[in-house]
Amino acid sequence: MNDGIMPVSFSAVDNLPYMLMPGDLNSNNTVFGGRVMEIADRLAGTVAMRHSGKTCVTLLVDSMKFLAPARQGEVLVFKAAVNRTWNSSLEIGVKVYAEDLKENTRRHVVSAYFTFVALDDQCKPIHIRQVVAETAEEKRRYKEADVRRMRRLEH
Amino acid sequence: MNDGIMPVSFSAVDNLPYMLMPGDLNSNNTVFGGRVMEIADRLAGTVAMRHSGKTCVTLLVDSMKFLAPARQGEVLVFKAAVNRTWNSSLEIGVKVYAEDLKENTRRHVVSAYFTFVALDDQCKPIHIRQVVAETAEEKRRYKEADVRRMRRLEH
Amino acid sequence: MNDGIMPVSFSAVDNLPYMLMPGDLNSNNTVFGGRVMEIADRLAGTVAMRHSGKTCVTLLVDSMKFLAPARQGEVLVFKAAVNRTWNSSLEIGVKVYAEDLKENTRRHVVSAYFTFVALDDQCKPIHIRQVVAETAEEKRRYKEADVRRMRRLEH
Amino acid sequence: MNDGIMPVSFSAVDNLPYMLMPGDLNSNNTVFGGRVMEIADRLAGTVAMRHSGKTCVTLLVDSMKFLAPARQGEVLVFKAAVNRTWNSSLEIGVKVYAEDLKENTRRHVVSAYFTFVALDDQCKPIHIRQVVAETAEEKRRYKEADVRRMRRLEH
Amino acid sequence: MNDGIMPVSFSAVDNLPYMLMPGDLNSNNTVFGGRVMEIADRLAGTVAMRHSGKTCVTLLVDSMKFLAPARQGEVLVFKAAVNRTWNSSLEIGVKVYAEDLKENTRRHVVSAYFTFVALDDQCKPIHIRQVVAETAEEKRRYKEADVRRMRRLEH
Amino acid sequence: MNDGIMPVSFSAVDNLPYMLMPGDLNSNNTVFGGRVMEIADRLAGTVAMRHSGKTCVTLLVDSMKFLAPARQGEVLVFKAAVNRTWNSSLEIGVKVYAEDLKENTRRHVVSAYFTFVALDDQCKPIHIRQVVAETAEEKRRYKEADVRRMRRLEH
Repeated sequence: MNDGIMPVSFSAVDNLPYMLMPGDLNSNNTVFGGRVMEIADRLAGTVAMRHSGKTCVTLLVDSMKFLAPARQGEVLVFKAAVNRTWNSSLEIGVKVYAEDLKENTRRHVVSAYFTFVALDDQCKPIHIRQVVAETAEEKRRYKEADVRRMRRLEH
Repeated sequence: MNDGIMPVSFSAVDNLPYMLMPGDLNSNNTVFGGRVMEIADRLAGTVAMRHSGKTCVTLLVDSMKFLAPARQGEVLVFKAAVNRTWNSSLEIGVKVYAEDLKENTRRHVVSAYFTFVALDDQCKPIHIRQVVAETAEEKRRYKEADVRRMRRLEH
Repeated sequence: MNDGIMPVSFSAVDNLPYMLMPGDLNSNNTVFGGRVMEIADRLAGTVAMRHSGKTCVTLLVDSMKFLAPARQGEVLVFKAAVNRTWNSSLEIGVKVYAEDLKENTRRHVVSAYFTFVALDDQCKPIHIRQVVAETAEEKRRYKEADVRRMRRLEH
Repeated sequence: MNDGIMPVSFSAVDNLPYMLMPGDLNSNNTVFGGRVMEIADRLAGTVAMRHSGKTCVTLLVDSMKFLAPARQGEVLVFKAAVNRTWNSSLEIGVKVYAEDLKENTRRHVVSAYFTFVALDDQCKPIHIRQVVAETAEEKRRYKEADVRRMRRLEH
Repeated sequence: MNDGIMPVSFSAVDNLPYMLMPGDLNSNNTVFGGRVMEIADRLAGTVAMRHSGKTCVTLLVDSMKFLAPARQGEVLVFKAAVNRTWNSSLEIGVKVYAEDLKENTRRHVVSAYFTFVALDDQCKPIHIRQVVAETAEEKRRYKEADVRRMRRLEH
Repeated sequence: MNDGIMPVSFSAVDNLPYMLMPGDLNSNNTVFGGRVMEIADRLAGTVAMRHSGKTCVTLLVDSMKFLAPARQGEVLVFKAAVNRTWNSSLEIGVKVYAEDLKENTRRHVVSAYFTFVALDDQCKPIHIRQVVAETAEEKRRYKEADVRRMRRLEH
């Protein structure tokens, strides 16, 4: 293992299930969006820290899209991976599916991009090892992450 | 009250305090970002439903920025208001401060934009009453909300 | 700002919304009273600490009245303000409304009085700045708080 | 068992332990008062429903006194019993101790009186079976409950 | 009190009620098993620490049987007692009933055996005082606990 | 896909991370065992339902061993898979690791076996599709599950 680089797969999580129960629903009896955000942030932070081996804190949630509601009886399934690293920051992509366990079907319900910054013991940003995109899908996300970053710096 | 329009102030919340306790902290002993997102989503949804008088669901969290960490002993103070309405959707701006109750000081720690859509009983988008920006600040946010929307439609 | 006195408005909170979800209900499917108490205590403690600028702990909850049940689909709205200060203690009044966001109506559902004591670093009671009641309503509550205190000392 | 009367002991709970963990503490690292209220309300409601065999809802928390703080490493021990019944309402007394499991000592930290009303299926108050105080202690509490009730009706 | 031995009754809890609310249910609208485990572990740990006067940590949950589901409107009632002590470890038996408060009936829904080990300040196992089984029921459980232990050591 | 059989890999979860925060700790500042049980039960139930395509409820937790404590700053990583199926029941094996994200090390901290039963709409046990163990490891667990079942039926 080279400490300077690490593949996306090293820190990725591709199947974190969370079974919805009544305490996870909103007043509309669909899943409470705030609960999804909470789980996604906990997961994305874990991926960021696993990749970098450093303490990481959330800087930005950039475009979290709710595509469809999820309901009791469904299981949320979370995926998260490093899209790209920069000097001391990194972007984590999160996708959430609603899985119907009886029908064995999945719908894509949420997408989000989280940017974290790695900190040293004095809470100063610190250089992190870079990520290596290996698959075609990872390479596409790697490229798009930089476009998003440019757009963010622009505005 | 005209059912067709409503001022920003009708639905705005400008001082929702939340005292941080150990159960709100992350492994770094600063406030867990996911908890802030959960409270912000619950609040923004309330503002959206109070303005529109309809069931509203989160469509998009767009640019939630964490500017500084908050710590135990501080109080998070949330503000939320409708920035702009469109046909069946509306943007809610949320700002979060960390208030030190002993020093009587506040730091701005989080900003976020939430877009909600109003739904009828069949879960179809439904026309909502429009918001009226009255103060200079409200007018600036009203204008900027449309720029953000254009940018979102573009990408 | 005179450190010796502070108006009621400095620390008051008049619109803290909390949208009810299934996880907030009791076995009767109305709001669980214990949840209301928990939110009210967190809020009242924040008001006490914001007014005094000191660590405050709950001494007494005195007459918390549940006037009507609240249901899913409603939003609880909490108000809290300092009613009166004494040497090292202060009374916070809390009112809770159930707001129907679709009908734009509010019902008064809970009233409560919380007494807090301010503590120094050795956990000894410490003198606090006094509150100034400015409006007619604040003056009425200021007067009544002393009657309640006399009654408490009596029994 | 006579359905018209029931002894205090039938519904009383005299040893409900709750071990304090970091998630139960406030920003001062003592037990969060709101958590104590939540557990006390859940327990008092259970005692009221066990005595009456009816759905019961909280009407009033009357004089909840916090006598001393409790800390991590301690166990809260709750006691609750019916103090007195009236036509459709009843008063439940709750006492909370902080137990140090290593020293085998207990301090009395909280006292509270909860009044509940029993409801029929249309949510109307309904007559309940009366309680019988058997021990000297129960008889004292039975008598005092009526004094408190008179005082409440007076004010 | 002899520090070397202590009766079962000293640390036993025989009536810990927990009223089920919607937030305690699973996607099937019966009680979520994980919630029962959480309450049982918190309770068993309290009994272990009260008996031993030491810090205790869970070593083993051995045969937790779910005999029947519990539903909203019911109250879970937990019982826990030391079954047997060995040098530095002890077995706690937990039984859970579902009580219907209106019908005044109880069903046995869960049984479990928890083994804890007592630790000194360096987190090393430490000798604990022994338990004395006094009633016929306690003596039966004392004997059976050793059979279970033999079986565990065997496998 | 043959509806009558399904490989272990179809329903297995091998990397569910859960970052420990202060609200997950016990009074000893190590992870609260009850929280681990709650997450493990939610996960094992998901695996059981994904394999069977039926509603499943927990019947038995059999030998949940806590091998070592986990601490704040660590991430719990859960693995779960079907070990074996019988007519209407199935055994799920769960393993939990404590991962140190900075050192990139893992310790095995918990092992557990959960047995679930699949139910039809009348809550009667229902036949489920059988599992196929493919790898050497899966075949070993498949064999051992039957030994455990025999032992359970024996006692």
